[in-house]
Amino acid sequence: MKKLFQIITISLFSISVFSQKIERIEPENWWIGMKYNTITLLIYGKDLSDLQPSISYSGVEVLTTETVENKNYLFLTLKITSSAKPGTVTIDFLKNNKKIITKNFPLLEREAGSADRESFTQKDAIYLIVPDRFANGDPKNDRFSFLNEKVIDRTDENKRHGGDIQGIINHLDYIKSLGFTQIWNTPLTENNEPNYSYHGYAATDFYTIDPRFGTNADFKKLAQEAKKRNIGIIWDAVLNHCGAEYYFVKDAPEKNWLNCTDTKMRTNHLKSTITDIYATEIDKKEYTDGWFDGHMADLNQRNPLVSKYLIQNTLWWIEYAGLSGLREDTFSYTDKDFLAKWTKTILEEYPKMNIAGEEMSRNAAQTSYWQKDKINTDGYECYLPTLMDFSLNDNIVSALNRTESWFSTWRDVYQSVAQDYLFPHPADQMIFTDNHDLDRFYSRIDKNFAHWKLGIAMYMTMRGIPQFFYGTEVLMTNNKAGSDGQRRSDFYGGWKGDSKNAVNESGLTDEEKKAKNYFSKVLNWRKTNSAIRNGKFLHYAPQQNDVYVYFRYNDQQKVMVVLNKNTEDVSLDLNRYNEIIPNSIHVKDIISDKAFEINNTLTVPAKTAMILEVSSSL
Amino acid sequence: MKKLFQIITISLFSISVFSQKIERIEPENWWIGMKYNTITLLIYGKDLSDLQPSISYSGVEVLTTETVENKNYLFLTLKITSSAKPGTVTIDFLKNNKKIITKNFPLLEREAGSADRESFTQKDAIYLIVPDRFANGDPKNDRFSFLNEKVIDRTDENKRHGGDIQGIINHLDYIKSLGFTQIWNTPLTENNEPNYSYHGYAATDFYTIDPRFGTNADFKKLAQEAKKRNIGIIWDAVLNHCGAEYYFVKDAPEKNWLNCTDTKMRTNHLKSTITDIYATEIDKKEYTDGWFDGHMADLNQRNPLVSKYLIQNTLWWIEYAGLSGLREDTFSYTDKDFLAKWTKTILEEYPKMNIAGEEMSRNAAQTSYWQKDKINTDGYECYLPTLMDFSLNDNIVSALNRTESWFSTWRDVYQSVAQDYLFPHPADQMIFTDNHDLDRFYSRIDKNFAHWKLGIAMYMTMRGIPQFFYGTEVLMTNNKAGSDGQRRSDFYGGWKGDSKNAVNESGLTDEEKKAKNYFSKVLNWRKTNSAIRNGKFLHYAPQQNDVYVYFRYNDQQKVMVVLNKNTEDVSLDLNRYNEIIPNSIHVKDIISDKAFEINNTLTVPAKTAMILEVSSSL
Repeated sequence: MKKLFQIITISLFSISVFSQKIERIEPENWWIGMKYNTITLLIYGKDLSDLQPSISYSGVEVLTTETVENKNYLFLTLKITSSAKPGTVTIDFLKNNKKIITKNFPLLEREAGSADRESFTQKDAIYLIVPDRFANGDPKNDRFSFLNEKVIDRTDENKRHGGDIQGIINHLDYIKSLGFTQIWNTPLTENNEPNYSYHGYAATDFYTIDPRFGTNADFKKLAQEAKKRNIGIIWDAVLNHCGAEYYFVKDAPEKNWLNCTDTKMRTNHLKSTITDIYATEIDKKEYTDGWFDGHMADLNQRNPLVSKYLIQNTLWWIEYAGLSGLREDTFSYTDKDFLAKWTKTILEEYPKMNIAGEEMSRNAAQTSYWQKDKINTDGYECYLPTLMDFSLNDNIVSALNRTESWFSTWRDVYQSVAQDYLFPHPADQMIFTDNHDLDRFYSRIDKNFAHWKLGIAMYMTMRGIPQFFYGTEVLMTNNKAGSDGQRRSDFYGGWKGDSKNAVNESGLTDEEKKAKNYFSKVLNWRKTNSAIRNGKFLHYAPQQNDVYVYFRYNDQQKVMVVLNKNTEDVSLDLNRYNEIIPNSIHVKDIISDKAFEINNTLTVPAKTAMILEVSSSL
Repeated sequence: MKKLFQIITISLFSISVFSQKIERIEPENWWIGMKYNTITLLIYGKDLSDLQPSISYSGVEVLTTETVENKNYLFLTLKITSSAKPGTVTIDFLKNNKKIITKNFPLLEREAGSADRESFTQKDAIYLIVPDRFANGDPKNDRFSFLNEKVIDRTDENKRHGGDIQGIINHLDYIKSLGFTQIWNTPLTENNEPNYSYHGYAATDFYTIDPRFGTNADFKKLAQEAKKRNIGIIWDAVLNHCGAEYYFVKDAPEKNWLNCTDTKMRTNHLKSTITDIYATEIDKKEYTDGWFDGHMADLNQRNPLVSKYLIQNTLWWIEYAGLSGLREDTFSYTDKDFLAKWTKTILEEYPKMNIAGEEMSRNAAQTSYWQKDKINTDGYECYLPTLMDFSLNDNIVSALNRTESWFSTWRDVYQSVAQDYLFPHPADQMIFTDNHDLDRFYSRIDKNFAHWKLGIAMYMTMRGIPQFFYGTEVLMTNNKAGSDGQRRSDFYGGWKGDSKNAVNESGLTDEEKKAKNYFSKVLNWRKTNSAIRNGKFLHYAPQQNDVYVYFRYNDQQKVMVVLNKNTEDVSLDLNRYNEIIPNSIHVKDIISDKAFEINNTLTVPAKTAMILEVSSSL
């Protein structure tokens, strides 16, 4: 009887041993020569917590092996010292001193200049793409039976439409021709949610490109193809939340891996709790720990293992794909100490890296709180280089739409920019006509083409890093205000057989063609002008004449921007601008292509933007 | 012939000598024992610049005698050393070494405790009066033939109505009975303008009370009578501008005594130019140097003599009348370096003195720029203790009027207060239902009495120093929005024969009587509660239930304020408030006078403010 029992036990054990699988090791590799060289591998597989990982590789040490509440996880922390050479680390997993599984962990060589890579700055212009809605370059990857959302339906604004990475690659020449030097895609990682998965903000695997967009290799190819055209790729990092179908949500390593899993309480969206000296603990907690909506799980970055996982994931993508920059979603909803650590770590590794944080607020005191070098009264220090300028976005629209005001209809724009003293690095703001969360610029200004041109001229010459939403160059609109699906409607010509095509202009209206021409003309000129790329900004208070005048300038160049919103021509007396230009000057208007002289008086046509390169005084 | 000529010359000279008059010496006296002991006397009279002033008084030295462009002025700077004793300094004015005029300059002893006087703080409540419109206590001083505006007409909202200092004195018991401990009068100094002189902001003599209000002695009597009732008097200082009829405007000492005298250019009102890093010099200059309107002359405080004149004038009134505090008009329109000096000098002389600056902006970053101890990125340091909170003023009205919002109709108030982190001393903000420049509170909330009570309860318990406008206690209104004259309409019963009287309540409606009762009840209670007088503030984010809950607390006392704007009763679960109170407590509602127990659930009646003194846990 005893013997029988032993046999049964052994055979059960053997079955268990032989069925032991390691489903995931994240990250799947690392690089030598990184400053961030203490890596914690998340190792996932059924009941593997009693395995003993063991390695023997010159220059690599095991620092700790951690188990957590859930037996399906192991966290292995390696130190990759400066003496380590590229190669493959073999990790042996032992049970009762018997090696039962072996896994490889490659240590790769970095690309030359990786740490010192350039990133996006004022010199650039960014094209924002929602990949599912941009172009279907590979119809073979439109749907997969192993993914939860199976329907693809272009007639439904909430379903997937089939856009993919190949579609973006196919449009790189077009994007370059418009004058862009950077592309920001909304998230491309796997979103294996049953519904509403197209937008990408409910990741179910931070390390894998969604198959409907392509593969990790496809994404790397996009970055390489873009680079050949001097275009950088900006990664949309999501740190606050992930999809409910993420394996570590459904089978969490620890109870505190996520916040509010019991209640799935929604965030209260009260950004003010971050700085409010009177805020209660419960309101603060509801802001940071609440779920962004009922579906997206809120990650607890106070858990050191979560923190490491997210930091490593970002570094991995930068290094793997050769990213040129980052955009960080729902910035302030995330634990603020983690945000400081995440931004600091990235900048230590890549000192020139730019990161644009989404703090969706029109309050400059609130947004500037997060910027690098800001001196906050509570002592908080973040290292975020760039903020998205939602104040300017709103105020350009309200200025364009406003018909009267106590001193000028331009006042909102003027006063929005005047808040820049609150930013340690005011030029490091991303300025944007529209994005995937906002109504289309052309819709918001009531499809007024003259105002559209004024707005585009402003965005392309204003201080900050301009970003435009795909299709804005051809006046794409959303008729229903507030509809996310319409904001993210299909790009003209991204699908075979589309009746309109932004690239070859078939089906475009005359106005749309004119828009595209105006847009690409100014944006391509923008690349050539150092005063715009790195110059200072000086603006004159708009007056009763309702003309907004500002200058961009450096030691080499001066650009005078004149925005006349009147329905009549306006004459400007140049005396007012003598702080920056003399009364008589040679200029070239880069929009009309006319070079001319101004003697004291400049006449600005009705509803017209003039962008004047000041070449010399007479 | 030569002799005749000599005789004529001599006699002309003699005539000139005998006609030489000194019209003004300002200030007319000083005090011994002041920190500010280097006094510059402005001496004014026709062609007196060649007179040599001479004094002989132990402990007083003449430092300089300055002449300026205009021969009608002399500036005599005296040092009053610590050895000087009270008495009368005799100033002899010599011409060709001959004494031709003698003037007295008294050196007075200061009141005991003068330097250490207390000022207004959170413990206080301020009653704002427009003296011409409050009460006519002395009909004999209604008009004077020697003043430019001769008409008195109560039917014309822009003319003088006859209110005066005696009228205020007559109402001190009433004001005290309401619960007030401070009175702020709009300016009382002489405004000898031909029209629209009643408001007082166009001074024509900073050293003299307007005769239609009374005399300097009457004003001192007001301060003394008020003090007997534990009421302080706050002086409305105007530093930026003065009336066009001021002697030193009509006959300026120097061309740069005033700004823009040639153009009388209006200010552009662009406060943002103060901090805007992109602002042009011309826009900055137009803001600070422009005339507040076409009539009020803009003083150039960069002129050191103007600066001294204004600083001395403020110190003189504090010391002369025994003022308890200052309010400073159109704060940021004034030269900012001067403002730093003026505030610093006053606080050096009177360390506990409070000054409320009027920066009429809803932008907390902008207003907090001026507060003492604020660390500004441009390095600017002002010493202003208190700012007027225009943000809260607007936001309480919009919260009360709002019928829907994404989380609560109270959101505007909540988010307004949440900006307090920008202030080094957030409790040092003057909060106000209304003032002479704003529409009446009751009008702005559409005469909704239930909302009025919610608002009044909030103002009397919120962090900050509450200020109410005369007549707000009896629901005074202005029917025409934006009408200054209606905002400043006559106080009920301030004139003999008035059909309505706020004091004895004759002619008041039931609602007005109820309002007065509610108002005085809460305000008198306010004086007794240390949590309100000096306690901290903690607020809960208003939720979908549309109830705003906040606490005032210190080591001794806790007050829970519950503002229910719903048309139905609301039940609150006390669990939410466990950071500050337990679930079961004894409370007393100071509005309903009911003491009761709360066990877990508090029921708040519809449209009701509860102010609960938390006495103990059960």
